[in-house]
Amino acid sequence: MDTREQDINNNQPHVQDESRRKFLGTTAMATIAGAGMAMGLAACKKSDPAAPAGTAAEAHGDASRSVAPGEFEIHPGKLDEYYIFSSAGHNGEMRIYGLPSGRTLKRIPVFNIDPMVGWGITNESKKVIGTKPDGSLKYMTGDTHHVHGSYKDGTYDGKYLWTNDKLNSRIARIRMDHMECDKITELPNVQGFHGIFPDKCDPVDPNINYTTRVFCGAEFHIPQVNDGRDVDDPSKWYALFTCVDAESMEVRWQVKLDGNMELLASSYDGKLAAATQYNTEGGAVLADMMSAEHDACVFLNIERIESAVKAGKSFTIGDSKVPVVDGTKAANQDPKTALTCYVPVPKNPHGVNLSPDGKYFVCSGKLSPTATVIATELVHKYFAGELKNPRDAVVAEPEIGLGPLHTAFDGKGNAYTSLFLDSQIVKWNVDASIAHFKGDKNAKPVLDRIDVHYQPGHTYASMGETKEADGKYLNAGNKFSKDRFLPVGPLHVETEQLIDIRGDKMRLIHDHTAYPEPHDAIIVRADVVKTKQIYNMDDFPNAVKSFGDSRVERHGKKVNVYMTSQAPNYSLQEIRVKLGDEVTITLTNHDKVEDLAHGFGLEKHNINFIVNPQETHSVTFVADKPGLFWFYCTHFCHALHLEMRSRFIVEK
Amino acid sequence: MDTREQDINNNQPHVQDESRRKFLGTTAMATIAGAGMAMGLAACKKSDPAAPAGTAAEAHGDASRSVAPGEFEIHPGKLDEYYIFSSAGHNGEMRIYGLPSGRTLKRIPVFNIDPMVGWGITNESKKVIGTKPDGSLKYMTGDTHHVHGSYKDGTYDGKYLWTNDKLNSRIARIRMDHMECDKITELPNVQGFHGIFPDKCDPVDPNINYTTRVFCGAEFHIPQVNDGRDVDDPSKWYALFTCVDAESMEVRWQVKLDGNMELLASSYDGKLAAATQYNTEGGAVLADMMSAEHDACVFLNIERIESAVKAGKSFTIGDSKVPVVDGTKAANQDPKTALTCYVPVPKNPHGVNLSPDGKYFVCSGKLSPTATVIATELVHKYFAGELKNPRDAVVAEPEIGLGPLHTAFDGKGNAYTSLFLDSQIVKWNVDASIAHFKGDKNAKPVLDRIDVHYQPGHTYASMGETKEADGKYLNAGNKFSKDRFLPVGPLHVETEQLIDIRGDKMRLIHDHTAYPEPHDAIIVRADVVKTKQIYNMDDFPNAVKSFGDSRVERHGKKVNVYMTSQAPNYSLQEIRVKLGDEVTITLTNHDKVEDLAHGFGLEKHNINFIVNPQETHSVTFVADKPGLFWFYCTHFCHALHLEMRSRFIVEK
Repeated sequence: MDTREQDINNNQPHVQDESRRKFLGTTAMATIAGAGMAMGLAACKKSDPAAPAGTAAEAHGDASRSVAPGEFEIHPGKLDEYYIFSSAGHNGEMRIYGLPSGRTLKRIPVFNIDPMVGWGITNESKKVIGTKPDGSLKYMTGDTHHVHGSYKDGTYDGKYLWTNDKLNSRIARIRMDHMECDKITELPNVQGFHGIFPDKCDPVDPNINYTTRVFCGAEFHIPQVNDGRDVDDPSKWYALFTCVDAESMEVRWQVKLDGNMELLASSYDGKLAAATQYNTEGGAVLADMMSAEHDACVFLNIERIESAVKAGKSFTIGDSKVPVVDGTKAANQDPKTALTCYVPVPKNPHGVNLSPDGKYFVCSGKLSPTATVIATELVHKYFAGELKNPRDAVVAEPEIGLGPLHTAFDGKGNAYTSLFLDSQIVKWNVDASIAHFKGDKNAKPVLDRIDVHYQPGHTYASMGETKEADGKYLNAGNKFSKDRFLPVGPLHVETEQLIDIRGDKMRLIHDHTAYPEPHDAIIVRADVVKTKQIYNMDDFPNAVKSFGDSRVERHGKKVNVYMTSQAPNYSLQEIRVKLGDEVTITLTNHDKVEDLAHGFGLEKHNINFIVNPQETHSVTFVADKPGLFWFYCTHFCHALHLEMRSRFIVEK
Repeated sequence: MDTREQDINNNQPHVQDESRRKFLGTTAMATIAGAGMAMGLAACKKSDPAAPAGTAAEAHGDASRSVAPGEFEIHPGKLDEYYIFSSAGHNGEMRIYGLPSGRTLKRIPVFNIDPMVGWGITNESKKVIGTKPDGSLKYMTGDTHHVHGSYKDGTYDGKYLWTNDKLNSRIARIRMDHMECDKITELPNVQGFHGIFPDKCDPVDPNINYTTRVFCGAEFHIPQVNDGRDVDDPSKWYALFTCVDAESMEVRWQVKLDGNMELLASSYDGKLAAATQYNTEGGAVLADMMSAEHDACVFLNIERIESAVKAGKSFTIGDSKVPVVDGTKAANQDPKTALTCYVPVPKNPHGVNLSPDGKYFVCSGKLSPTATVIATELVHKYFAGELKNPRDAVVAEPEIGLGPLHTAFDGKGNAYTSLFLDSQIVKWNVDASIAHFKGDKNAKPVLDRIDVHYQPGHTYASMGETKEADGKYLNAGNKFSKDRFLPVGPLHVETEQLIDIRGDKMRLIHDHTAYPEPHDAIIVRADVVKTKQIYNMDDFPNAVKSFGDSRVERHGKKVNVYMTSQAPNYSLQEIRVKLGDEVTITLTNHDKVEDLAHGFGLEKHNINFIVNPQETHSVTFVADKPGLFWFYCTHFCHALHLEMRSRFIVEK
């Protein structure tokens, strides 16, 4: 392969080497320097790494790290082993990749607009997204951070995915049979909705061993009610933890908490939800938010919260009818009745992740070079009144490197934490960390480190957030790719790096790209996912069920057009309306062949959508200009696809 | 690799084999059958294929076709050799891939909305896209089909890319230094703008040996003027060929033509543009459009057209001021003065592509199993009055297979044509075809065939549309992937298949995915592309050039907010406005580190955009609800990114 050695990018040399290039002096160092100054990292020392961070790059020459040519290649016609379901940041969509190939299998429009499928354009999608009184979309932006799937028996059941919108505080659900968003709910009284996690069992009835609730954590403190009052009194601002019903997608209850919530996790027994928190100080500006030495991982006792709600020990905020209970530290001093347990962890923690055996919640330090291991059993003891100090639930706090953000698990007792500042993934053993914490000086928590390129955010392992964690693959979602790919202007693509974690040493498999800005994802075994390939026409109440039903119906100024598609034709060759009519076009695709979708694009009317086999969609618009406008099939359907078109005529 | 053998998809077996799976009985066959019936393909016989189509799949066992493990793998940290610039169909964007990896390097928002960058949200992008009188976007949909780059000396100069919007008849330009769309022009009097091609030289001044015009072909016939008149008289409908100025992006002139234009090409000497046409019958419905035995490839004499425009031999249509000349067959009977030359080709042709030596335009038959080779020199002779019959410009018409759509070249005299119905790429030799056409029975035009999966549309070779065609890679953009990838619901992803064309036999390198619906692309050597990595602050007239300029200025009900960003802060911690104010926020990013972009997301206000290093963007909106709304950095910038936020307060 003739990869280019020459200068292609404004005199910045592109060295053909898999180790780090022009790392010094660019973003990473600027960030480290900036962060170091702001955070006082001088106080942090690294101890006990299996290999010092500085030597990890050299370790790439180690044969135990090398990947054989083609070892992980997916040959033409072969299928991937896993799905990755990934959030897409402020692009607002969700994405599906195949692993190990890294190929993008689908974009799922959620909080964005996508003329490819007609998301945000059809009446059906507008209803899911939500509209203003005038029928226009309430939002066409969003900021997804995390994706999680529905559980049964402690592993994915392949039914639903959920993701958050941090920008407009919405939760979206994706039906995994169609891989389409079917519900979006805006959370009341919330800004900065960041962490999200489904439950895995009912807290009371162990027979309900599947997801029925989705937990949502809010980061930003706001005045409650937020109608202009209290904007100058931060002491009155707070954030809410929200429980959404997994089926109805309605908000069940909320909890007033101290602190700004970052990430969430839920226990396998359904009894606990956990949220890392920063700014337990309640500060409104950065310096105040970082003044305390410890923040917390707060645990919520779901059974007690729901009992309190049932008993009416709740209040409401403004126009919202959602019951809110008080989970602040001050209101929950007696462990035996407490709704919450605030376990102190080093200040400004980031991720919290549960080990596959359900025993340990691991909080990543972010500003501290540590991970904090909290025993589930000891949190239960706290709520039983058998553990005096919440901090006693901490069973280990290994020093693992600079900027720990998120932790994944291999199901064999090892944890893998992304180190944002060190630009590494560190592998460490949970039991060894506990032994070390107890005083065993021979216990070595850190087992291995591998450089990633550069500055990883989330890292996640195959089936790693389930009881079926299989220890095969780990993905590092890196925030900066720098010169790892051909330059494409000022905005670089991000890197996803796939790592083999089957052996003692981690091996880097490949660099893949991700359009900004990927955040979290889950890696799901392919057999878990059972999709439908053809829609059921009866699922669409407005379906035009036979060609004979095709017609144009007028009701005053409203015109309803009923039409079908079957390759290579629409059922109507011409639609006639009058200037100023409000026109609704309903289109049902009668083709039954898998993947034989048709498009509907109407020239000069900003209308564009597709109908998959046996699917129905509709659009409503005003015919605001006279003339002849062709509508045509925008989605390749058939050899005569280019000829598939009809006329929309607006008479003066 | 444990690829799965089991049924994962509604009882449809996934056989782990690289040859064709469940090809029979699904879309492809339905399409072939449908097409066969509609087109009377029974009349077509295949002759002289080097290998019959049916045996191509078996040929995959042939060692000469096999790719060694890892042979084309791009290892972590290695760079790709080529860029692919690809259109994205009715998704409305443009895409950049790396080759041979197939990794997506960038999405360029063009006719769509992208909250990731703020495309369609910032004032600057709204100005490019175009707005209605009320300031809202005129369009947020589009349908891109083709991408072409600007030329100098017969090859790409890395300056501009252009793409079409078939849905709203717009042409967009991308600046290749920033890889961003900087201009969009709506073509007057046009619907179904499909083919697009830049010129490569001035037709008169050979010193202007670079692109100064972009040609645009329209497919749909419409009444001229299209204001409600003539909607029942198809004889008065016609389509226009449009010339757009490459720099100003203004429309220079238009030509009235017979037929519906499909694809375009332009000669290296700047003298000719070519457009394939169907429906030279001028029919309004499918049966009428396909009644004639021959349609045409029409050649436009650019010099004569511009002389006619200069001489005022033009008319205008409706409110449009663009001069239109008459290029119909009836008005151009004398070759010595004709503006156009209609070369008959078998009916309903599709692509037209120029060989890298500039000698031959190749039209693909679509409904005919042939390619038609037209000699550039003979077209020049026609315009000189030295060739009586336009059909005499045809020098070969080899039978190559079923459903020929587009042709690529390797610069070594061979052509590669996508066969939609055969689901193959066929390699054939141009000189051998000419010899065969002249009567040499020993000449064998077809050299090789390779199966692709399934139903290829465009195919294109590395540098294949330039004089520097290098014969390394060929990409087949396939319309149906069927079961080549993990299922993701009713709508499948499409396949891009990369083929090694360096040897005698084509070799399939890999299957990659493309979010629907990719169309055409160009493959450009990486050294051609020179991007800028940091913006110049002075290029933004509204830049907030120093932190000290940060302020909130009120002018009646209009409030202007001037702000800067530098990790990890915005320059204002609080912005206060009053309910009902029209607020414009202008944000300049003062970070200078490559790729250190900041986001600006304002909670509950549908505002989301980024500013790259030294870039400025602005948004304007009405503060329509009282309360406190956080705005925060949506694009990962720094270790304290999550803490980068400020308050927008709307007072009652």
